[in-house]
Amino acid sequence: MTHTYPAPAAVVPYERLLSFTIAAFRGIGCSEKDAVTASTALISADLRGIDSHGVARLIGYVRLKEAGRANPRPSIRIIHETLSTAVVDGDSGLGLVVAPFAMGIAIEKAEKAGTGWVSVQNSNHFGIAGYHALKAVEKDMIGIAMTNASALVAPTFSLERMLGTNPICVAVPAGEEPPFVADLATTTAANGKLEILQRNNEAAPLGWVQDKEGQPTTDPHALKTGGALLPLGGDRDHGSHKGYALGAVVDIFSAVLSGANYGPWVPPFPAYVPMPTGMPGKGIGHFFGAMRIDAFRPAEDFRLHMDKWIRRFRSATPVAGQEKVVIPGEPEREMESERRTHGIPLHDAVVADLKGLAEKLNIDHPF
Amino acid sequence: MTHTYPAPAAVVPYERLLSFTIAAFRGIGCSEKDAVTASTALISADLRGIDSHGVARLIGYVRLKEAGRANPRPSIRIIHETLSTAVVDGDSGLGLVVAPFAMGIAIEKAEKAGTGWVSVQNSNHFGIAGYHALKAVEKDMIGIAMTNASALVAPTFSLERMLGTNPICVAVPAGEEPPFVADLATTTAANGKLEILQRNNEAAPLGWVQDKEGQPTTDPHALKTGGALLPLGGDRDHGSHKGYALGAVVDIFSAVLSGANYGPWVPPFPAYVPMPTGMPGKGIGHFFGAMRIDAFRPAEDFRLHMDKWIRRFRSATPVAGQEKVVIPGEPEREMESERRTHGIPLHDAVVADLKGLAEKLNIDHPF
Repeated sequence: MTHTYPAPAAVVPYERLLSFTIAAFRGIGCSEKDAVTASTALISADLRGIDSHGVARLIGYVRLKEAGRANPRPSIRIIHETLSTAVVDGDSGLGLVVAPFAMGIAIEKAEKAGTGWVSVQNSNHFGIAGYHALKAVEKDMIGIAMTNASALVAPTFSLERMLGTNPICVAVPAGEEPPFVADLATTTAANGKLEILQRNNEAAPLGWVQDKEGQPTTDPHALKTGGALLPLGGDRDHGSHKGYALGAVVDIFSAVLSGANYGPWVPPFPAYVPMPTGMPGKGIGHFFGAMRIDAFRPAEDFRLHMDKWIRRFRSATPVAGQEKVVIPGEPEREMESERRTHGIPLHDAVVADLKGLAEKLNIDHPF
Repeated sequence: MTHTYPAPAAVVPYERLLSFTIAAFRGIGCSEKDAVTASTALISADLRGIDSHGVARLIGYVRLKEAGRANPRPSIRIIHETLSTAVVDGDSGLGLVVAPFAMGIAIEKAEKAGTGWVSVQNSNHFGIAGYHALKAVEKDMIGIAMTNASALVAPTFSLERMLGTNPICVAVPAGEEPPFVADLATTTAANGKLEILQRNNEAAPLGWVQDKEGQPTTDPHALKTGGALLPLGGDRDHGSHKGYALGAVVDIFSAVLSGANYGPWVPPFPAYVPMPTGMPGKGIGHFFGAMRIDAFRPAEDFRLHMDKWIRRFRSATPVAGQEKVVIPGEPEREMESERRTHGIPLHDAVVADLKGLAEKLNIDHPF
């Protein structure tokens, strides 16, 4: 999903934003290598137009470290494994560092066993799922990435928030065509889209959020007054039990398989929000998969048919008034191309945050 | 999802319906073993309340055989494999027989490699995904099953039908609690729910179907006049691009990985509907996965936490007027318990079909 903030206060070249972010992660004690890893993962969100998950969150990661909830020098390790699986303990490291490690293990397993599947405990937020899944595509593999997150979403019929926005990404290599990348929160709308409505004081479509009584509402601020995001589908008649079930699968794969926290016990991203009580696991959980395409059929055949799939869908007759049927991943790739060339626009509130961060950490800033 | 036909004309004990179905599959030339396998898979849909996919479709399978589109004596075989993967050629066999074979391979792979992943070409309809996924649960594994199907669904912004209802099932074992079973078509509403509205001439909620111009409609008959089912989400504002992306993933895993047909080229279930032209693969495709829970953490730990997950979600505070938050799989399991005891209700049109089938095949019927 692309969703950009209105009225950029600055447009910063990718490389300058990256080196600033590296300096910030160095500033909180990360190694040079980890700072580069974390920054590349984080800023990929800005490149792809998912501004809510990019550098706008940098200060949030810094606060997690300050609150002792993120470890800048983790010993990330495998605590259990088979030929095609592993469980990784992230040692409270930044999810932006833990996730690339775990995806790397999934890819190594796939090289030997055909597929690799890694569940992760004791991590925190990993940025956008698409970045991690695409790492497998570089190796001619299908990549899968998912994560749980702190509870903002009410399952069908629930007054309580029980699940995070729990995204799933599946990235598939093609031949001449660019990869297919399905990257979706298991809610009707991502929180970032709601934030845009909040800034503009615009009504949300019914089906995005419920109020504190569990009733449908168009108030984009309902989350701040005891409301909740709704699972994909919006209400029971429109299949919200399916969005709930998908979010639940992400939670189970990411946390019940790994030993992380799940459901309402997942630690919050904002460091000022108290931790849940009675937590049953360690940190946040992720789940990664890598499947070698030549573990199923010759890679050349797969690429030919994947190209054919993409071209057939792209050429489907559109409804009058619509330009075309969109291949999942196309809008984000177009955005990345645009922003690599022309720079990354940043909202004034983000620029102010980052200037403050630069001062605190005594590093240069690009504004 | 449970959706039953109104006004049953007969209530038949499970064992009698099963032996009738076995006789019918024997009648079209299946081996005794395959007839039992196919019937058990087929009737599991009736047991679980998914009447649209059960014995009501028996005559459809018979017609596929008569049209030469289903092979009652297939040589099902592995055509490619690695430690954790395989591709199975179903030899045009009944999906009800091919799918249990393929799921069995996934389970065998998982026993040795931790996980097993099997993509299937040259099959046809396999009944309900939940039946196949639950086979893994019997072995203390997470089971995954999905299939593509003939195109009834218009992707976001598409006038054309490009995808089937492409269901995904994920079944997860627990400890004292029964398994978690998420089994969902990647559309807003399953076709079976639409059929109930058609019978009763009731309006469909907006978001289920579009008309032949691609406009939202409440006409439950719109599919017969050039309309289409809509992906989960219903429209772009409510996340239909996510339902479309999920349906696309099912199509790719089931068919582009295996060499089956995909997108608008998937063969139709009704034998009287002409085959698509220019088909790029063989038959229908499925995809199965099995993950040993002890390939991730000790099975006992997993079971304890899965029970805790289920109990916490079940005890979430419900919205006023709602009884409780439903655990995925609960309604189907309750239905199965009820119908194993009290028999399976069948609609009069189904009974009439089955009587005709009994006469044609010269077998006894249970009505």
